[in-house]
Amino acid sequence: MMSDITMAYNTYGTLNADHSNAVLVCHALTGDQHAASRQPLTGKDGWWSVMIGPGKVLDTDKYFVVCSNILGGCMGTVGPKDINPETGEAYGLDFPIITIADMVRTQALLQDYLEIPSWFSVVGGSMGGMQVLQWASAYPERCFSAIPIATAAKHSAQNIAFHEVGRQAVMADPEWHGGKYLEQGKNPRAGLAVARMAAHVTYLSESALHRKFGRNLQDRDDLTYGFDAEFQVESYLRYQGINFVDRFDANSYLYVTRAMDYFDLASDHGGSLPAAFEGTPTRFCVVSFSSDWLFPTTESKDVVRALIAAAANVSFVEIETDKGHDAFLLDTPEMLQTIGGFLAATAKSRGLTQ
Amino acid sequence: MMSDITMAYNTYGTLNADHSNAVLVCHALTGDQHAASRQPLTGKDGWWSVMIGPGKVLDTDKYFVVCSNILGGCMGTVGPKDINPETGEAYGLDFPIITIADMVRTQALLQDYLEIPSWFSVVGGSMGGMQVLQWASAYPERCFSAIPIATAAKHSAQNIAFHEVGRQAVMADPEWHGGKYLEQGKNPRAGLAVARMAAHVTYLSESALHRKFGRNLQDRDDLTYGFDAEFQVESYLRYQGINFVDRFDANSYLYVTRAMDYFDLASDHGGSLPAAFEGTPTRFCVVSFSSDWLFPTTESKDVVRALIAAAANVSFVEIETDKGHDAFLLDTPEMLQTIGGFLAATAKSRGLTQ
Repeated sequence: MMSDITMAYNTYGTLNADHSNAVLVCHALTGDQHAASRQPLTGKDGWWSVMIGPGKVLDTDKYFVVCSNILGGCMGTVGPKDINPETGEAYGLDFPIITIADMVRTQALLQDYLEIPSWFSVVGGSMGGMQVLQWASAYPERCFSAIPIATAAKHSAQNIAFHEVGRQAVMADPEWHGGKYLEQGKNPRAGLAVARMAAHVTYLSESALHRKFGRNLQDRDDLTYGFDAEFQVESYLRYQGINFVDRFDANSYLYVTRAMDYFDLASDHGGSLPAAFEGTPTRFCVVSFSSDWLFPTTESKDVVRALIAAAANVSFVEIETDKGHDAFLLDTPEMLQTIGGFLAATAKSRGLTQ
Repeated sequence: MMSDITMAYNTYGTLNADHSNAVLVCHALTGDQHAASRQPLTGKDGWWSVMIGPGKVLDTDKYFVVCSNILGGCMGTVGPKDINPETGEAYGLDFPIITIADMVRTQALLQDYLEIPSWFSVVGGSMGGMQVLQWASAYPERCFSAIPIATAAKHSAQNIAFHEVGRQAVMADPEWHGGKYLEQGKNPRAGLAVARMAAHVTYLSESALHRKFGRNLQDRDDLTYGFDAEFQVESYLRYQGINFVDRFDANSYLYVTRAMDYFDLASDHGGSLPAAFEGTPTRFCVVSFSSDWLFPTTESKDVVRALIAAAANVSFVEIETDKGHDAFLLDTPEMLQTIGGFLAATAKSRGLTQ
């Protein structure tokens, strides 16, 4: 049980007089609160700049957009790399195991702090989508609408398996030191890079990889036969791995992947997913992508069926794209239109005016 | 260029008088020559005991079945863990980069050595299937029939990506020592185990994982919240990783995955896959599995289309199963029937009698 919790968050736009135009954006596994502003470590645009901004789908001329770093993260909200006041050292593996429900509980504290009685919408993809589902289930009166994207109500065996590979890669790195690497001035960079590479393959579809790279060679005309990055796809993956370790904490990676593994909304409700949403007043827009094999459309349909069984107000769109799971982060026009349309209609129901 | 090459092989059954009943079985990435006999390191039955034996599909009362350890392997055929006569130390990364064509070339030397003018059939799944395709392309007159299973004529970008993750996991292990771990009395066990775990996920389908494990807990009734193997799928994967390192050489893993990455039969024939089989007299039986996402049916269909364009004699079966890529190693009745039927008909064409 932690008492004082530090949370880092960003806001975009202006809260209106009756505090009814606030949107909570929930970030995914390796995202952070810099949804629409420069990420200070990478210098890159926010991870959802395509979605959030003046005149965009999450229109900051109209909505007050809030994005907080998740509990257990490593960009300002308390996580395993922070100092445990009881020991004066970094928490490391003494940080308590967290769940998606814990993340949402801290976001609800932030909602109180910001004096927002109810979010106009809670939006997110992948692990962000898990938070959206948890929000709607745990605090139905406090979210007017919910947009879970490319997500599921439980983590599948295959996804747990891929996460376990990543965690084992981190823990196999001798620089991990049983989680106490910070005290030793070490960092399990190699293990974390391998974990990121393995995960990254799952974020793309085979057709996206084929279109992007095929068997193209990296900076050469002919095969050179060796263990260098000979194919472009290898070079790309290595780049993804190496860059990631500069901005992410290895123990955070363990905790946050674990939180996803534990997510199983039905089992928290006696094995019934409809029971998780019984009598909900929240309006739902469920979005999936045809080539997403990490969170396939069948998982979104399970959510939609449960919502219908719970007599919820729900719309569902499967978007045709070959971009795989990562499509929710990309400029995917049909996604932007779908969510934009849903928000416009929902704003009318909420009585929001420009 | 290597001169003397040591090859390890097993035979099952008896070569007939005119040497016309020999079948070459080609093993996959982590297989070996113990296709139908006890593996000496694990004590387990041969990896294709379901297929090979008296009265089985590859009937050792009828056929003379040959299986050799691949070039670059670690079970007796020369590979990176063997002594380089020039230095007196293990080859390590001084072992030449090998290709599927090199593996097949050494198998052709074995064919000469055994005085077999032409295999009755060349059979194999996954990387074994790549060897089958290479055999048929390079030595059409020396294989009467060919049975490529769960394979492709080129390695896809996604598959190269997964292999690269595995290689990076091995190379990230400090015990790898730039490939010179044997001299140091070390072994990159942790890295190789992670590589094996990542690969193993790809060998199963999501539905097989779901059926086998779902979100079942390992030896406990309730969640305990921690980083132990809490879910059965985690425990299973860790077991796969740990067991693998006792029987496989890490550098071999690098070389053999690389050989698969380089495989691209069309590019060896001016970009035309039909050209690889032009005028072939070989009879083909191509087999794929509906839930195999590593070597999906589309890849087998590419092979079949090329064979048809080359006016080859080809039959093709996609087998409905939820067992994923691993189905070729399992007791998959439709596979056994398909291959058994094809071999019976082919034996008639060959004039083989009991």
